[in-house]
Amino acid sequence: MSNSGLNMSRRIRRTPYTDRVEAHGVTGFSVVNHMLLPKAFGRSVAEDFVHLREHVQIWDVSCQRQVEIAGPDAARLVQWMTPRDISRAVVGQCLYVPLVDEKAGMVNDPVLLKLAEDRYWLSIADSDVLLWAKGLAIGRGLDVEVDEPDVSPLAIQGPKATALMASVFGEGIRALGFFRFGMFDFRGTRQVIARTGYSRPGGFEVFLRDGALGAELWDTLWKAGERMDIAPGCPNVPDRIEAGLLSYGNEMTRANNPLECGMGKFCTNAAGIEHVGRDALARIAREGVRQRIMGIAFDGGPCPPCGKPWPVMAGGPGGPVVGQVTSAGWSPRLRRNVGLSMVARGYWDPGQRVVVASIDGALRPGEVSALPFA
Amino acid sequence: MSNSGLNMSRRIRRTPYTDRVEAHGVTGFSVVNHMLLPKAFGRSVAEDFVHLREHVQIWDVSCQRQVEIAGPDAARLVQWMTPRDISRAVVGQCLYVPLVDEKAGMVNDPVLLKLAEDRYWLSIADSDVLLWAKGLAIGRGLDVEVDEPDVSPLAIQGPKATALMASVFGEGIRALGFFRFGMFDFRGTRQVIARTGYSRPGGFEVFLRDGALGAELWDTLWKAGERMDIAPGCPNVPDRIEAGLLSYGNEMTRANNPLECGMGKFCTNAAGIEHVGRDALARIAREGVRQRIMGIAFDGGPCPPCGKPWPVMAGGPGGPVVGQVTSAGWSPRLRRNVGLSMVARGYWDPGQRVVVASIDGALRPGEVSALPFA
Repeated sequence: MSNSGLNMSRRIRRTPYTDRVEAHGVTGFSVVNHMLLPKAFGRSVAEDFVHLREHVQIWDVSCQRQVEIAGPDAARLVQWMTPRDISRAVVGQCLYVPLVDEKAGMVNDPVLLKLAEDRYWLSIADSDVLLWAKGLAIGRGLDVEVDEPDVSPLAIQGPKATALMASVFGEGIRALGFFRFGMFDFRGTRQVIARTGYSRPGGFEVFLRDGALGAELWDTLWKAGERMDIAPGCPNVPDRIEAGLLSYGNEMTRANNPLECGMGKFCTNAAGIEHVGRDALARIAREGVRQRIMGIAFDGGPCPPCGKPWPVMAGGPGGPVVGQVTSAGWSPRLRRNVGLSMVARGYWDPGQRVVVASIDGALRPGEVSALPFA
Repeated sequence: MSNSGLNMSRRIRRTPYTDRVEAHGVTGFSVVNHMLLPKAFGRSVAEDFVHLREHVQIWDVSCQRQVEIAGPDAARLVQWMTPRDISRAVVGQCLYVPLVDEKAGMVNDPVLLKLAEDRYWLSIADSDVLLWAKGLAIGRGLDVEVDEPDVSPLAIQGPKATALMASVFGEGIRALGFFRFGMFDFRGTRQVIARTGYSRPGGFEVFLRDGALGAELWDTLWKAGERMDIAPGCPNVPDRIEAGLLSYGNEMTRANNPLECGMGKFCTNAAGIEHVGRDALARIAREGVRQRIMGIAFDGGPCPPCGKPWPVMAGGPGGPVVGQVTSAGWSPRLRRNVGLSMVARGYWDPGQRVVVASIDGALRPGEVSALPFA
């Protein structure tokens, strides 16, 4: 069940790097935003985990599509979409912004890039934020353009990422702060590069404008990385779980609010800011949440991939179901499985004993953990 | 390239029928609306084509999610989303409705089910119409609820579909007209069943409400179909191409308008009806379209799957590129390949000689065909 054939079609879009990824022997894909996301290169997830934390990897994350919001009302629309206060954001800053609907349900959790006072990119997870933003704008008559530009992020992640990036884009890139971006030269073009990424070691993302440059960008970074043991990779499940990085559609859907998702720090001024979900979110904040995203550390040997949610019981077998693991993997560092689960109020304290009913029928003992994992 | 592993996760949702589909030995999936669509069961596409046109098949098309629009402003919102006049639609009717954005770009091409004067389902292709509809409604302050109910369509298609459905749901189902739906009993529940489907022989779709009934519905239909040579299936590429049925994301995207897509008959009153894309569509209609969706019949033996668009040259090799094939397959009936392509003005007359540059490097001679194929 963890691996079946993916039938290809134009609808599941290739990226400017797909040819390279195939040349590297990709063995598995996922589909995000109607686009291919490479997920395996013939090595185990555990091997990839270890490599990612020691060396440097190149990831085709073009599926993080950019929704560009530009025009006189751009800031107004972006602010209307999120409970996070963006009024003090500066050009060159990246902000993690929960997007919510009128019930304060999560619509997406993109990284916002402020390109100019009247121009923003939302670097999105797996839902059609473009249609959402465009619908809101048209409905309200806002003066903005909402579009998906030809921008294909390529991530360089791992402890050697800074050295690699400096060798290609110059020493100036070392000065780039966390969640900041700058403009850097590549083959006579100016490209957005951010110190961001979906991994615990972190690194950079090149927001390549113009897919025609994709092969050249990939090859340039690959060549510079060869002496650093560069490998093709992808977001690593146990790595990002340890880091407490959520995946939209896995850990959360529109049925979840940002307070459950551990995003309360981005909603502190929620009652004051006018956004789509303001009233609903204020009510939820008053009443308190019934569940909260937590880590689950559990035993029983390496678990299979989590293709559908696994019930979490409090105490031991036969205990009440208090959550469901929605992502899981084996951490070579902790030598345990790590997972993410919404956990019901009363059971979410770190150390709470649980049992995870994984797909292979095993009942795996473990306990609730704080995020990120220690 | 035509088949690589699909990595499973909760984000790519299973359906109420996925267990059954796996039991039948599914060998390939696609992903539509963040949900699994079975695409292969170990038989060839040509074998499936022949079976579909002689017997009956059961298809898990749960990925055709329903976007429910309900409330006092429901009809107003639905009409705002499409150039097709829905004012004379009656309860029990299904309508194929292009959805367009403010530039008259295609957002989706769902089937609309009118459940009541103030309640509609949009049975959608692959884009998040829910976010689009909700954004428009919130922006404009319309009094509607937009949601995705627990409805999972199961299609029964093929020439024996009527006999099979009558044996399960009663003889009354024979009276159901094309693109009409009725309410039928199943295990004490009332279910929407429509005479619709994404195939040339046609059939029915059961819009199952309550996923918990999925296995029982599947098993009931399967058992009744055994004496009719029922087989598990899926939308068949050459079959639906012959029928002129387009696939959103393949043949058309937001870059295409409904007039290019052969949907002019649903836009006849476009200038009069107030919808999101009215002004843009009226301008396009005045200026005339630059390309139009057409069939392409071509030779050179069975073509590989069309994973990325194939250029279409007019005349012969070296001729001008006048289109791109976005879906293609071998028709056992015509003993030729059939494909769909936008074709540039001046070259779209049936019989126009072309060459298709398919992925395997072959230059395949053929000609433009009307839709549906004769």
